[in-house]
Amino acid sequence: MATPGDVAPLAHGGDLSAARALFPGAPEPFLDLSAGINPNPYPVAQFSSDWFTHLPEPGEVPRLAAIAAEAYGAPSAEHVVVSPGSQIAVAQASALVAPGSAAVLGPTYAEHARTARLAGHEVIEAASLEQMADSSHAIAVNPNNPDGRILAKDALLALADRLRQHGGLLIVDEAFMDASSRDESLAAEVGCGNIVALRSFGKFFGLPGLRLSFAITSPKIAAELSAALGPWPVSGAALAIGAQALADKAWIEKTRSALLASARRLDAVLSGAGLQVVGGTSLFRLIETGRAEALFRHLGEAGIFVRRFTEQPAWLRFGLPGSEQGWRRLEAALRASVSDQS
Amino acid sequence: MATPGDVAPLAHGGDLSAARALFPGAPEPFLDLSAGINPNPYPVAQFSSDWFTHLPEPGEVPRLAAIAAEAYGAPSAEHVVVSPGSQIAVAQASALVAPGSAAVLGPTYAEHARTARLAGHEVIEAASLEQMADSSHAIAVNPNNPDGRILAKDALLALADRLRQHGGLLIVDEAFMDASSRDESLAAEVGCGNIVALRSFGKFFGLPGLRLSFAITSPKIAAELSAALGPWPVSGAALAIGAQALADKAWIEKTRSALLASARRLDAVLSGAGLQVVGGTSLFRLIETGRAEALFRHLGEAGIFVRRFTEQPAWLRFGLPGSEQGWRRLEAALRASVSDQS
Repeated sequence: MATPGDVAPLAHGGDLSAARALFPGAPEPFLDLSAGINPNPYPVAQFSSDWFTHLPEPGEVPRLAAIAAEAYGAPSAEHVVVSPGSQIAVAQASALVAPGSAAVLGPTYAEHARTARLAGHEVIEAASLEQMADSSHAIAVNPNNPDGRILAKDALLALADRLRQHGGLLIVDEAFMDASSRDESLAAEVGCGNIVALRSFGKFFGLPGLRLSFAITSPKIAAELSAALGPWPVSGAALAIGAQALADKAWIEKTRSALLASARRLDAVLSGAGLQVVGGTSLFRLIETGRAEALFRHLGEAGIFVRRFTEQPAWLRFGLPGSEQGWRRLEAALRASVSDQS
Repeated sequence: MATPGDVAPLAHGGDLSAARALFPGAPEPFLDLSAGINPNPYPVAQFSSDWFTHLPEPGEVPRLAAIAAEAYGAPSAEHVVVSPGSQIAVAQASALVAPGSAAVLGPTYAEHARTARLAGHEVIEAASLEQMADSSHAIAVNPNNPDGRILAKDALLALADRLRQHGGLLIVDEAFMDASSRDESLAAEVGCGNIVALRSFGKFFGLPGLRLSFAITSPKIAAELSAALGPWPVSGAALAIGAQALADKAWIEKTRSALLASARRLDAVLSGAGLQVVGGTSLFRLIETGRAEALFRHLGEAGIFVRRFTEQPAWLRFGLPGSEQGWRRLEAALRASVSDQS
């Protein structure tokens, strides 16, 4: 591919073919803890070929937008864009601003800097919100991936105010907000006109292959983004399952508690193996250790795939096991790793 | 919605809620002939929750691109962009060209002019390829929707040559090329660098709700468009079903013949009712009649929904019935319409 170097494809979690190439002798099936995705997905009770054989009807998209607005606390359906993934939404939002400087609060999910570069912006990695105020647009992930850092809503709104003075845009990727210990979402605050908050459906609901996300923004920007996506932005399956899942308050409530309990259990398992948890959300935990590379290989050889980071070689990110068998495998592999070391 | 008037949402086929609102007394189920979509879709033998619960692995997208390259006759997988619909692909391609003049060969599918306007271009409706040569980009539909007009490959390549001299881009929407009586696809010719040919998966395979299409273009443009779509451009279902269907040469061959036979049968049925068929592809036929509005209403009241066109009040477009029962309903309603008139 002729992609220039600085926008070349990036490594991501969830790539089991990479795991198999790295650890050809590992026992199958792999326990994939490399992605921050709910391992106990929203149950899809019944499949329907109608999802695919019909064009979604025009009313279905605003209907899903209305359900999402209520679930995420957006002012109205007109503030919500139904999108086939946050990646496309970030690319679209970055293109709303004339090419200039894009400040990305780092270190964070690497696709955002790449996407902003593709839209023609010069990308600056900022270390604080303060450093982002003069850029033509600012991108932050809240809570952050992979360290779970939470930005306060008030601080973000103050940044949006400063950006607005020179026509700047604030994009906040809230992909893990559903699994955050504090709700600092800007979903209810997008009326001020220069905020785009992105919500990922796939992570919390455990259905990333559905390709469904939402951009929550002013009605003006929402209309622009929706118009560019056209009348059929997502699949019939995404419309049907999304509408059902986002309205299922009991499942959402139960899942939030269950993920929190699992995240605490993961902390206990990791601490029990002498590992220091330095951050995370309810969908993943981040550890920092001088023996990250050795542990990554040890786990990989045991068929457990976690996420490492080229730029941060002491970090490893662990997703949640989805079954008791998975927990036992992880515990056993971590115990063996501790014995190896001693 | 705050959408400016000239980019406001458009009416499309396949909108049964509109049909129900227009014809509240019509017998259900509606026979929907308003969209140019294969009514006998590629059989999805088995549904898999894996389509949704996993992120597609990085290798799956190039694998589908390679299968699509072979099916459509593109030079290689690197010439193919896997996209969640042609709408997004046209928006992306229109954004490759600095805002200038977009010439759309008309009359045609109205979304293209709207999309070009959204990308900041001044849109000119051209009556011939000749009139398009000086624009910054040119958009043609081949075969055209709804009249089925076929543009010769050589004429399009000559236009691409002229556009290339001033950095212009040629976008050809080949959504109905699989159902064309002549293959004038530019898929094999995209190496010259300024052509984007768009292929729709959903229409021929009868699975429009899957949201899958392909942009066939130079490796350089393909890499740019793919990069903006990100690592997971389409759903797991689209990757799996698309790869299976596009490699199923027997089904494709059989379906091409079956659609052609159905289109001939539709011509006979329409002619038998005294209607003049003025164009079409194997997925739809267009008639022109002074009593289009009356016929539209007559059919609608009988529960048969066809496509009319605000700008061309004498035109009606008929999709193919998918069952013998559907054919009989259409024949009976047309017969009754003739008796009404006489």
